[in-house]
Formats: sequence, C-alpha cells, structure tokens
Amino acid sequence: MSEDSERHRFKMAKRKALQDARLAEKTVSAKGLLMVHTGAGKGKSTAAFGLALRALGHGWRIGVVQFGKGQWMSGERKMLEALGAEKVAWHTLGEGFTWETQDRARDEAAARRAWEKALALMAEPDLRLLILDELNIALRYEHLPLDEVIAALVARRPDLHIVVTGRNAKPELIAIADLVTEMTPVKHHFAAGVKAQEGIEF
Amino acid sequence: MSEDSERHRFKMAKRKALQDARLAEKTVSAKGLLMVHTGAGKGKSTAAFGLALRALGHGWRIGVVQFGKGQWMSGERKMLEALGAEKVAWHTLGEGFTWETQDRARDEAAARRAWEKALALMAEPDLRLLILDELNIALRYEHLPLDEVIAALVARRPDLHIVVTGRNAKPELIAIADLVTEMTPVKHHFAAGVKAQEGIEF
Repeated sequence: MSEDSERHRFKMAKRKALQDARLAEKTVSAKGLLMVHTGAGKGKSTAAFGLALRALGHGWRIGVVQFGKGQWMSGERKMLEALGAEKVAWHTLGEGFTWETQDRARDEAAARRAWEKALALMAEPDLRLLILDELNIALRYEHLPLDEVIAALVARRPDLHIVVTGRNAKPELIAIADLVTEMTPVKHHFAAGVKAQEGIEF
Repeated sequence: MSEDSERHRFKMAKRKALQDARLAEKTVSAKGLLMVHTGAGKGKSTAAFGLALRALGHGWRIGVVQFGKGQWMSGERKMLEALGAEKVAWHTLGEGFTWETQDRARDEAAARRAWEKALALMAEPDLRLLILDELNIALRYEHLPLDEVIAALVARRPDLHIVVTGRNAKPELIAIADLVTEMTPVKHHFAAGVKAQEGIEF
C-alpha cells in the first residue's frame, strides 16, 4: 500500500469512527417526525412526494392535502395512486395562489376546507405519513389561525410523520419541527430566459 | 366589498400582472435542464426521485445511476420499477461512502463503472431524465476527472434532463448548470437525539 493510500485509509477510518460514535449517541428510536420544507428554491413539494414514494415502498398508507397549486401535481398523484389507490388519500382543496384568485374570503374558505381534511386524516390510525403541501402559504397569508395549526401539529400521534411545504415557514412552525430544510435557489434557468419545462416543473 | 378586501384584491392583481409579465419574458421553450441538488440538508436525492415520479407520470423513460449509498434507496427503486420496469433503467454502482470502504483504488474503480454507465444511458435516445445520484461526492473526492464529467454533461442531448445530487457541488458544475438548489439544514432531529427513521430516511 502506498503512503498516499495509507494516509487516505487513516483519514477515512477516523471519519468512520466519528460517524459511528455520533450514531451511537442517538437515543430516541421511533418518533413521528414533523418535517418542514421551506425556502425560495425548487424541490420542496418534489422532495415531499419523493418521501411519499419511499413510504409506499415500506407499505405505508399516506395522505396528501394540497393547500394550493394542485393542478401542477396531477402526474405525481396519478403515479402514487397507481402504486395502490387504497394506500393514498389525496385531496386537492386549495384553489390556487391567492394572487390568482384575488378573493380573500374564498382563499380562507379553501384553506379551512383543506385544514379540516388534514385534521380528519391525522385522526386515521393507519396513516403513517401526511403531506400538507403549501400549508406554509396559507399560514403566511393568515388564511388559517396559526395557533390552531401549531396546537394540532404538536398533538399529532407519536407515530405519524408530517411534512409541511411552502416558502416562508412561520418561526412558530420551525420551533416545533423536528427537521427543517431550506431549499435555497443558487441558480435558476428562468433568469436565462428558459421557460418552465414540462415533465420537470409540472 | 370591504376596503380591506379591495386593497387585497388590488395588491394581488398587481402581483399577478408581474408574474404574467415574467412568464412572457421566457423565450427558450424546450431545453433539457442540468439540475444540481446540493447542500448539507435533506432532500437532495429525495427530490430527484420525486422528479422521477413526475417524469414517469408524463410517460418518460428515466435512468438512475447511483454513485453511492444505493442500499438506502431500495424502496424508491422498487416503487419506480413497479410503475413500469421498462421505463426505469436503475444502476447502483457505487460501493458506499469512501469512509466506509477505506480504499481509494476501489472507490475510483466504482466511480468509473458508474460514470461509464451514465455515459451509456446519456446515449440512449429515448431516455428523457437521468439522475446521477451522489455524483458530487465522487467529484469532490476526485474519484473521477472533473474535466471529463463537465465536458460530457455540456455535450448532452438538448432534450435530456439531468439531475446531479450530493453535497459540495463543484463550482465548475454549478457554472454549467441551469438550475441549482442548495438544501440547507435549518434544524435536524439528530441534534435532539432522535435516530434516523425507517420509512423517512431509508
């Protein structure tokens, strides 16, 4: 073995020991996570649907409540339902972005319907993963009372994983979440004059 | 209509006009995007598999080459293949993280095998989306020559979308990419002593 690969081996062994030690520190082994995907970048909803795919791979039943732009997700819905319609409870109850509808009362009513559906799904004992897509938008525009939503999320069953997506997650939501990821745009093709691409963005 | 909702309506109408104007500015309508999911946060690979789900929803044929940790993605693979095995070319050719294998020559050979498979898939004319999972790791550890990878990605077919995932994306890759998203960890349950959760993280 050369000196270079010896050094590499030593460095990597040290790193593995560190990783193993970190893993051993973890003590809580089964917990329904409250996950938040926020930020102005791409991938917030897409990563949530990737989690749905994984959950179905584990044989879980999942729920999706869309608080907005449901019309862009029909491909994902069709595919997830093809994997087992009885395993997927999908409800698109948002009526699009508020700047599309321009009617606050209608936005609030739509958010309320979506939230009631979310509460109903949270009460279903066989559901293991619930995606509340774009809930952050409804909270940001105060279409729903933040306190009510926070209280219900905190009181979720211990074995229910929840993913909340959307820009501008409220600090109160981040405070109660287990895992928060910010999707940050580093570079975007729109800036270079390239349109949204079918199959990738819708 | 109350003054408040009038003001809301005006604000939202202005916003919609701005959105519409931005959309009209986009001129390039069909382009295979080079996308990069990087950063230390969650969701890089998961969002890529969410894109795979969407692509299958559009009837596309997709490819996946895993440069690492393939063993954690068996649920996703099983589910995507269940949607049409003939539509999914999946190759797990990485041998795990370098700090697991502790053998540089083996890491390089594995990366080379994975890259050759990626090149072969890029040459298949009916493939529309190719996921190069954890390629960033192989580039970071110089298991592959960066120049060679960059040149091949730049020379991709104009209708092929490629997603490259992994931490520490090289600046040279970011420079040639159309869409770069950094997944930034804001909060992580590991810090609170909660282990990786089955069904969510693997």
